[in-house]
Formats: sequence, C-alpha cells, structure tokens
Amino acid sequence: MKIAIPIFDRVTALDAIGPYEVLSRLPGADLKFVGLEPGPVRTDNRMLSLNAELPLEGFAEPDILVFPGGFGTRVLMKDERVLDWVRHVHERTQWTTSVCTGSLVLGAAGLLEGLEATTHWASLHVLEQLGAKPTSRRVVEQGKIVTAAGVSSGIDMALRLAGYIAGDQVAQAIQLAIEYDPQPPYDSGSPEKASPEVVALVRGAEDAEARAAAAA
Amino acid sequence: MKIAIPIFDRVTALDAIGPYEVLSRLPGADLKFVGLEPGPVRTDNRMLSLNAELPLEGFAEPDILVFPGGFGTRVLMKDERVLDWVRHVHERTQWTTSVCTGSLVLGAAGLLEGLEATTHWASLHVLEQLGAKPTSRRVVEQGKIVTAAGVSSGIDMALRLAGYIAGDQVAQAIQLAIEYDPQPPYDSGSPEKASPEVVALVRGAEDAEARAAAAA
Repeated sequence: MKIAIPIFDRVTALDAIGPYEVLSRLPGADLKFVGLEPGPVRTDNRMLSLNAELPLEGFAEPDILVFPGGFGTRVLMKDERVLDWVRHVHERTQWTTSVCTGSLVLGAAGLLEGLEATTHWASLHVLEQLGAKPTSRRVVEQGKIVTAAGVSSGIDMALRLAGYIAGDQVAQAIQLAIEYDPQPPYDSGSPEKASPEVVALVRGAEDAEARAAAAA
Repeated sequence: MKIAIPIFDRVTALDAIGPYEVLSRLPGADLKFVGLEPGPVRTDNRMLSLNAELPLEGFAEPDILVFPGGFGTRVLMKDERVLDWVRHVHERTQWTTSVCTGSLVLGAAGLLEGLEATTHWASLHVLEQLGAKPTSRRVVEQGKIVTAAGVSSGIDMALRLAGYIAGDQVAQAIQLAIEYDPQPPYDSGSPEKASPEVVALVRGAEDAEARAAAAA
C-alpha cells in the first residue's frame, strides 16, 4: 500500500501529520513524503521544517494520495507540474484525498468538476469557482475522491479510509494506538458552533493570509 | 512566549505536531523544535523526518516545555544531558508539559515524584516505577506540570493551555482555525471503550516495541 503525501512551502503541518499518523499504521504501509524537490520545506508559520524524501515523480503509482492544505496551495494551484502530477497519479490511485485547502489543488487539476467537496470552512467559496459543489460535511466521499475539512479533520478521514482498507478492527486498533478519544475543552470547532465574534476573528485572519498568499 | 518542543530519534510525530499546531497560533508565540543536535530526526516508524532548529541548550529559558513521546523516550530516560536540561528549564517555565510517553522523561528527571500523571495507556505502569501516581484522565494538571495521554491528546491539552494563557476567546478561535470538531468513525479511542480484542492487539504491539526500545 503506497501512500504519497506531498509537502510544500507553507504547508499546514497537522493537515499532513494527522493522516500520516493513522495511515502509516496500516499493515504493509509504505508512506512517503514527496515534494517539488527532495529536502526541507517550511510550514505556514515558518516554525517547523519537514523533509520531502523524494520529488513528486520519484514515488511512482501511489495507491493513496493525501494532499494537505496550507496557504502554499494557492501557488500550487497555478503550477502545471503539480497539476499534471495530480492528474497522472489519480488515474491509478485507489483513493485520492485531501485535507483542508489541499482540495483546492485537486480542484485546480480538474478532479472535482461537478462533485461535492469540502475544504477549510473559510475557503469553501473557492471550491465553487473550481467547479465543485462545496459542502460543509467534515469528510466528503465521492467515489474514490475523499475531501476533508480544515486541518484536524484529516484524522477522521484517515480512520474512515483505514476501515475501508483494512477493516473495522484494524481501524479501531489504530484509533486506540493514537488514543484518539477527543475531549476538546470548548465546542467551537466549526463556524456553526463557535460564537459570531470568534468566527469573525478567524475569518479576518484567514482572509488576510489567503490574499497575501494569492498575491505571492 | 517561548515554547520549546524537543524532538529526537523515534519521536511520534503527532505527539509534537498536535500541540505545535495549537500553541504556534498563540499571539506572540515563539515556538522552536530543539534536539540533541540541530538537524533531522526520524520518527518512530522511520517514514518521516522533522528538523530540530537548535540544540536543547540553544533556546534558553522557554516559558513552555512540551515533551512529546515515542519509543525514543526510553533512551532519553537514561540520558543525563537530557534529564539535566529538563530539570534546568523546568525551574523557569510557566508550564512544563508532556504528551504520551514524554511524561516518562519528565518522570526520569524526577519531576513527577508523588504527583498524579498520565502517559500512553499501555505505559501507565512505567509512571509508577518513576514515583508518580498514574491516572488515566486525558489531561492531568498538577500545578504547572501538565501531562497528556497518548498521541492525539496533545491537541486537547494544548487548547486547555491556550485558554489559560490567552483566554477562552483566543483558544476558541484556535479550535475553529484548525476546525477541531472531532467526528471519529469509531468510539475505540481508549482501552475502556475499545473491545478486548482490539485492546489486546494494540497492547501486544506496544509491549513488543517498548521492549525493543528499552533493549536498544
């Protein structure tokens, strides 16, 4: 089971690491981080660097693609090499997936045309511009294309995939191994649940970052 | 607000990245990954490398210490340089925290003597050997020492810290920014909730890894 996770300048770390922590525990998992070139990439806030082991094309025919998000996706949406690679690997994947604004890259590659899809709640409008039908479900399955909502949702998506791939018992064992028994101290994890003040605070910050990333 | 996250050979990535994704969003956060030496460290399953920016001692007087877990902690528990560093930074921290088996390092440094503490559920017995009172709450606060349970629990712990440090509204905004509205497809995230078969499966694998790491 070959699993490719592309990482790139201004990736959001948890988008990638959530699914990694789940899918790497599948029996026979061969999971690799790939990048525009091998070597370090810096995350969105510049406080961490992760290493791509191989260039995109160096890990041929992955069974699962997990495209993480981050403000760096705005540049990738215009990068024909990346979009060609996504279209190419999608031909043979069992699952083509994304977390957060990773779905904007799938959309820019033309994969979401006419399909329901999701992304970070503050970027749902962009999906519509890419021909998808934005929905705010946390995990959206459309055949073998699965998109997940913002950042932490990749853990839930990956557990669902683990169940499909290896059965419920293995997926439950993975959930137990990572002790994923969430107990957040607040209930403000979606715009429907957070107060209007909190939503406005985050939307303002996200919009400013997105504008800066798009201008880059 | 200086936040130090030590990383090391055989760290579990999500232990570190969960709290990073939350705490890096605090206003004024200066979060750095530190290591035995600067440069790449490989995670427990060898499928990812993260980069330490500085040696342990290179980031003086952090306000928050987050010690992540992983089978690599078994070696650190016998490393006097690491234990001295933990004791030294603990003198001036506002919060000394751990995720998963990171608490075993805090315990080996003598910080948990007589205190309630937690760790990954499969390692709770080791805490007792270190003089702590093991508990299976997901986040255990004892003054400024806060220990969290296995792997994914660091997200919950960090949101709680964010509330103490910056107030509920900021913490709720961080929860919303990372869209942390958990919807796991199963309810097997703790040994009390998983089936006996699933618990046995994970305990067997964890015990074998722990024995191999202790022998290393």
